[in-house]
Amino acid sequence: MVTRTYDENTVIFFDTTLRDGEQSPGATLSSAEKLEIARQLSRLGVDVIEAGFPAASPDDLKAVQRVAREVGTEDGPTICGLARAVESDIRTCWEGVKDAKKPRIHTFLGTSPYHLRMLNISEEQALERIRNAVTLARSLCEDIEFSPMDAGRTDIEFLIKACATAVEAGATTLNIPDTVGYVIPSEWADKLEHLIAETPGAGPGSGVIWSVHCHNDLGMATANTLAAVKVGVRQVEVTINGIGERAGNTSLEEVAMTIQTRKPYYGLRTNIDSTQIMKTSRMVSNYMGMPVQPNKAIVGANAFAHESGIHQDGVLKDALNFEIMTPESVGLHQSKLVLGKHSGRHALKKRLEELGYQVEGDALNQVFARFKHLADTKKNVTDADLEALMTDEFSKPQEYFSLSDIQVVCGTMGMPTATIRMHNANGETFVQSAVGTGPVDASYRAVDTITKAPNMLIEYSVHSVTEGIDALGEVTVRIGLPNSPRTFGGYGADSDIVVASVKAYVAAVNRMIAGMGLGDIQPEGDAAVVGITTGTD
Amino acid sequence: MVTRTYDENTVIFFDTTLRDGEQSPGATLSSAEKLEIARQLSRLGVDVIEAGFPAASPDDLKAVQRVAREVGTEDGPTICGLARAVESDIRTCWEGVKDAKKPRIHTFLGTSPYHLRMLNISEEQALERIRNAVTLARSLCEDIEFSPMDAGRTDIEFLIKACATAVEAGATTLNIPDTVGYVIPSEWADKLEHLIAETPGAGPGSGVIWSVHCHNDLGMATANTLAAVKVGVRQVEVTINGIGERAGNTSLEEVAMTIQTRKPYYGLRTNIDSTQIMKTSRMVSNYMGMPVQPNKAIVGANAFAHESGIHQDGVLKDALNFEIMTPESVGLHQSKLVLGKHSGRHALKKRLEELGYQVEGDALNQVFARFKHLADTKKNVTDADLEALMTDEFSKPQEYFSLSDIQVVCGTMGMPTATIRMHNANGETFVQSAVGTGPVDASYRAVDTITKAPNMLIEYSVHSVTEGIDALGEVTVRIGLPNSPRTFGGYGADSDIVVASVKAYVAAVNRMIAGMGLGDIQPEGDAAVVGITTGTD
Repeated sequence: MVTRTYDENTVIFFDTTLRDGEQSPGATLSSAEKLEIARQLSRLGVDVIEAGFPAASPDDLKAVQRVAREVGTEDGPTICGLARAVESDIRTCWEGVKDAKKPRIHTFLGTSPYHLRMLNISEEQALERIRNAVTLARSLCEDIEFSPMDAGRTDIEFLIKACATAVEAGATTLNIPDTVGYVIPSEWADKLEHLIAETPGAGPGSGVIWSVHCHNDLGMATANTLAAVKVGVRQVEVTINGIGERAGNTSLEEVAMTIQTRKPYYGLRTNIDSTQIMKTSRMVSNYMGMPVQPNKAIVGANAFAHESGIHQDGVLKDALNFEIMTPESVGLHQSKLVLGKHSGRHALKKRLEELGYQVEGDALNQVFARFKHLADTKKNVTDADLEALMTDEFSKPQEYFSLSDIQVVCGTMGMPTATIRMHNANGETFVQSAVGTGPVDASYRAVDTITKAPNMLIEYSVHSVTEGIDALGEVTVRIGLPNSPRTFGGYGADSDIVVASVKAYVAAVNRMIAGMGLGDIQPEGDAAVVGITTGTD
Repeated sequence: MVTRTYDENTVIFFDTTLRDGEQSPGATLSSAEKLEIARQLSRLGVDVIEAGFPAASPDDLKAVQRVAREVGTEDGPTICGLARAVESDIRTCWEGVKDAKKPRIHTFLGTSPYHLRMLNISEEQALERIRNAVTLARSLCEDIEFSPMDAGRTDIEFLIKACATAVEAGATTLNIPDTVGYVIPSEWADKLEHLIAETPGAGPGSGVIWSVHCHNDLGMATANTLAAVKVGVRQVEVTINGIGERAGNTSLEEVAMTIQTRKPYYGLRTNIDSTQIMKTSRMVSNYMGMPVQPNKAIVGANAFAHESGIHQDGVLKDALNFEIMTPESVGLHQSKLVLGKHSGRHALKKRLEELGYQVEGDALNQVFARFKHLADTKKNVTDADLEALMTDEFSKPQEYFSLSDIQVVCGTMGMPTATIRMHNANGETFVQSAVGTGPVDASYRAVDTITKAPNMLIEYSVHSVTEGIDALGEVTVRIGLPNSPRTFGGYGADSDIVVASVKAYVAAVNRMIAGMGLGDIQPEGDAAVVGITTGTD
């Protein structure tokens, strides 16, 4: 367990993977997935977890409450929720976070001319709303963060007034966001230095923490965040893998490793356990269906590629020649052969614990059965395989439909045909076959005929988990409804790519049925028109 | 066609996608692919193309020569080759670039204590080598670039001496690389400002162009590059999508769009036609098998996601509220339905020309046949589909083996089995079947039994080209040999994912056979042991 300590040189890591990160198109998470990620963020040592936007929906509120209760423990991180500067948002937010040992309410209001025009309010009215919102929040909670949204494009004098108003009303953290990813490190540092010096009641010794929240639209979020730290900002708002709206937020891993690698330059410390970085990166990428490109700094597959056999001729006499940090420092290890087909339940449980998963009882039996099946078809079962299995097992949504069997014929010579057997929640069985442009298309058409859930495939991607020709394939899909901005993701892992594809699709369809309240589009009755056998196995 | 113009405020874009970018693990390109990318870089408006490292191999030399002759035209970019500070490298480099209208030799020497120790030379000896190398290069070519490798960790006083020596010997561009991606914008700007002011013969008015080459190991390459530009650097070394060694180089698209978006701040101009950015990004990603993550700045699928139906509730009353550049400015358009099954050869040729592909005669017939086949299985043929087809058609390596037919049976219920029919270069036919853990594994095993080329699958990835359930699937694979650092990539596109997978694998195997001189591992004779039918169709 991470022990969090604080002094004036500590940079506080505020992780918003579960809030801004989850606003990435298609990255919707279930409540169980959010909890798993929050647990891992806690192991990583983040100081504050922004767990969601409780007023957004009852589900969001419940998910924040679960994280607050189960991860917001005595020695755990602060649990924060986001709220507009509106009474109902702030009260709902408090409902979400109040069960954490260290709760925080984060409220915001747009302050740039663009946003004031959008809200149709004057500067005076904006200050009044800030005062009221922060005062209310502070009457509920000791720890209050205020953000003037689009500060990057807000006039400095008005920004000072907005921040001073928030502090006067009781804000303990002032977070300055570059909402549209527009700023450049040197001008950003100048602006912040001025802001910190000129805001009454928020200078050094006041106890107020300054924070920044940068977006990566021009590729400079990390540099902007670090420029801010250099002029006295002591909280950084970040996400794992830099995910988030549009081009995303500042990457936790880049900021943490720069402060660690360039310690003499910054003279700062963090509570981040950098050896947990790779594991967290993989978990977030898998659960959200957001792949990490090979040339991503720190966590990309090639970031340490000179370590894995590929290197320039003759120049690698000393790793320091081309390496400023070690792969071990971010928790990157070569996948190891850990278990084979003769390994027992106990060995599996132990290895899963070492990987950070606590599995007991029925869940363990289920995982063990899948492990045995995998060990039968695949020679070497590696850590990466086990992580993929765990993701597949635990990222499952409520099952309106579950997949029983698939049979596919395809190739260049005929008409790709798939036959699918599924069950609904009542235990009824449906079998349907369909022809498509390929095995995946045919399978998806067969599933559609059974579920009758209208949808469009928005994204489909596959990668192999491990090296080697018998690798486990991971598929992530994202589907949407015509004329709706909402999308739903699904994940599946299997050594058969077509089976993995169908698993991922069924997971996404189940999530869409739950999310869109389509639960009454059940297949009974007229779903049984063509070639469907109903009945209970 | 781009018209390149220059004044003191022009930032010269030196693109090294084909040199440093190609050093990304597994991103090996054929000579035809390099040429296609060079043509597209020229359309994009880059000023200098670093086409390769001619001394690395005879193939590399030939590829640079082709680019020099066919892209290095009167109104085209400067064509540059890389050379160590060694006579033979420099002479070979000149052979590579001399047929371009504007040739450049780029020579380098490590100058940091780490690199001097590695080369086992003193500072004096290093200066001597720089003097000799640049003098020789200048005797061959008017346009000479010198780079002190690992300048980011080189003592400033020695760096000044190295640069002064290079200028004295005739260097016209001084490129300062941060080889290990270690620097931070403010210190980098200070170092460069000092260097530019103190290097004799290289100040303002001297005609010497200062350049930077940044790596992205800490996620700050773009910010470092732009900090350099702010203090007088006028050449930026970049790659498309930021690919390159380890975490890659500075992204061309991020630097170009920042200079364009923040024009009043920088007061600079470029020759880049930003509307060509997306097309170039996709071409490089496809040919190199290097996916771009959805949250990549500028070119990621989500970078403009609020434009494509996904947006926050009610806040998008004015695009400027959340948008600092338009999708159109980088050439991002929704995929359009352009052609259907009734479209003729002329319509296809015209559309391909609009997309930037010149196709005539036999090549057109071949593409047309594939287009017709696609239009038969897929309702809507979009621009993205056509680009995928062109990539598939033109990124083919020399064919030691060609694929005729595939037949696969798979699913949850049995043993996935594939049957493959292939031809070798002599027109002989081989048929082989194999069982595997899934349809792709079974197919690859069947291919292996025919080709007998020993290899390991290192990476396998798939994505769908277009939205919609009948999308064309694109597969990229990367294979390697046991105990060798070299890897070989392959690309395949098909509406059947298994067929696309096999196409990609066969392309990679052919490339490996060519690259490793395995051409004599032919299947005749003992390849026909089990179940193989030989003969000519």
